[in-house]
Amino acid sequence: MLGTRLDLERIRAARQVIDPVFLDSPLYRCEALDPVLGCAISIKLETANPVRSFKGRGTEVVADQLSRGTSHAVVCASAGNLGQALAWSGRHRDLAVTVVASRYATPAKLDRIRALGATLELVDGDHELARDRAAAIAQHNGIRLLEDSLDLETCEGAATIALELVDSFRPYAPHESRAVLPPQAHLSGRSGGDGGTGSGQPVVLIALGGGAMATGIGYVLKTLAPYVEVICVQPHGAPAMTRSWHQRRVITTDSTDTIADGVAGRRPIPEVLDDLLIVADDAVLVQESSIITGLRLLLDHAGLVVEPSAALGIAAILEDPARFAGRPVTTIICGSNVDSDKYRSWI
Amino acid sequence: MLGTRLDLERIRAARQVIDPVFLDSPLYRCEALDPVLGCAISIKLETANPVRSFKGRGTEVVADQLSRGTSHAVVCASAGNLGQALAWSGRHRDLAVTVVASRYATPAKLDRIRALGATLELVDGDHELARDRAAAIAQHNGIRLLEDSLDLETCEGAATIALELVDSFRPYAPHESRAVLPPQAHLSGRSGGDGGTGSGQPVVLIALGGGAMATGIGYVLKTLAPYVEVICVQPHGAPAMTRSWHQRRVITTDSTDTIADGVAGRRPIPEVLDDLLIVADDAVLVQESSIITGLRLLLDHAGLVVEPSAALGIAAILEDPARFAGRPVTTIICGSNVDSDKYRSWI
Repeated sequence: MLGTRLDLERIRAARQVIDPVFLDSPLYRCEALDPVLGCAISIKLETANPVRSFKGRGTEVVADQLSRGTSHAVVCASAGNLGQALAWSGRHRDLAVTVVASRYATPAKLDRIRALGATLELVDGDHELARDRAAAIAQHNGIRLLEDSLDLETCEGAATIALELVDSFRPYAPHESRAVLPPQAHLSGRSGGDGGTGSGQPVVLIALGGGAMATGIGYVLKTLAPYVEVICVQPHGAPAMTRSWHQRRVITTDSTDTIADGVAGRRPIPEVLDDLLIVADDAVLVQESSIITGLRLLLDHAGLVVEPSAALGIAAILEDPARFAGRPVTTIICGSNVDSDKYRSWI
Repeated sequence: MLGTRLDLERIRAARQVIDPVFLDSPLYRCEALDPVLGCAISIKLETANPVRSFKGRGTEVVADQLSRGTSHAVVCASAGNLGQALAWSGRHRDLAVTVVASRYATPAKLDRIRALGATLELVDGDHELARDRAAAIAQHNGIRLLEDSLDLETCEGAATIALELVDSFRPYAPHESRAVLPPQAHLSGRSGGDGGTGSGQPVVLIALGGGAMATGIGYVLKTLAPYVEVICVQPHGAPAMTRSWHQRRVITTDSTDTIADGVAGRRPIPEVLDDLLIVADDAVLVQESSIITGLRLLLDHAGLVVEPSAALGIAAILEDPARFAGRPVTTIICGSNVDSDKYRSWI
């Protein structure tokens, strides 16, 4: 409809095959953060599930498809969260899951991938090398290659998050839009619409890595709640997709340097960039120091342990408070897989 | 039915008036804790809501009643979580809420009560003095006194947690019971029934303070899933209700000494003890050191910040691993309101 690869009916169908443990994640106003950040913050918490990230939504869709087909083997490259989620979804459907990761990936994530019964192969390089290796394995073995953000299932899974957000924005809809939105009884009240709800255009802050989450959530919002501003956030240390978005063509980088391991890619996928250009209103870069402050604020004021990628939204507010002042802001807490020692050193 | 003050239809009715932001909280297997604890742990997470504890379930029921009546003022004594929840529920219904707390209560909790617009009165003594003072205020002003655990609404609110647990135990039901349990489609899949689910009698671990949560959850489980073992956990430093349960009569203590501020009462309420004697299978006491280890394990292996009361279940497993070995164990993470500085000192 918007000219992207995404489709609302497919996203709604995706929701039907995702294990409910990943659906209807908490969405709530976190007023304790308001005075610190100067806006009306709502949290969409994607960490209270068996794999501690939103990635299970997408891997459930992929694993469901595979379990209905003839080939029950799948390989993916992962910084850790996708691999963990695919291992979880695959185990529940007796799939043979192989995950390729950088040997510099977060050990806690690698440990969980192994514990979930997947075959883990490490490469001596970064995530892009893992992507190459996963493709080679798929070709050699004739099995399904799951490519994060390129494969529509990963975007559609992430997009189901936004189906659970739309109702919360209804109070901010222009008058003519309010009547159009269908009621979603199962989500009523899970809204940011508490006391002190903020005013002005609502905004969603989305961590930007490969782009599955940003394009998925962005697509649903632009379709069902187009009055919501969609802002993607990436670290200065891994800016490839953001630079690409601003220049409207794929820009690659030679290296990455960020603690936000979940979003540290160097080679944006053209098809994903095309979609992102349509559904995102902006893409911004943030400093590492802001990410760390974001981690601390989420711990101290929201009682949330999150991984650096999940603090990108808070970091964006810290770096440009005037932009968000007084507005209703929803940030997706997309993952909490951290190494305890590293986490303690950050906070 | 069981001879308690509780009633399943009233609990189901309570669910209808509770803001959905408090309902259907995450329930998921946390396999990363299994190897550390030697059993199959499921988490019921009651912290991902605007007041960061389960208490909103009960205060919603009370506030709903008050908003339909003629008197719109209410006072309660609170260690912090009940007061915060009542302030939240009252604000949404234009009630005048007064909270009485010990001046030694957790500052973060007191700050949030004030921020939510309640009148906060501090007493120079412990929680029991706050209870006396709240009763005096209610009598003097002719307003509603909300007494935690004594007032059925607080038990019924907590009991709705168990409505969301029952389905997860179905795989462990004796054969004849399985057919009897009604399907609850909205909860399907939010179960502990993943890979590596444990075997043996399932058990629920519940923090024990005044007894609202223990009697509420216990009642529902004994009614709908009587094959589940219900174990209450209290600190050695605040053992009044546990001692009372074992001696089958009210035992008071002169003081309390525990970091688990949420459960630090000295004077059990006779009516609540009577109910607890019917619905609890056991009540155990744990050391402070085990609570602190529990806090650390939940942080490091589950990525969860919790307050000490919420770590009591993990502490109970740590102190008696043989009792739980290999079994499916659900622990209620009942609150996460901590002072950052104290929390950092504990972990």
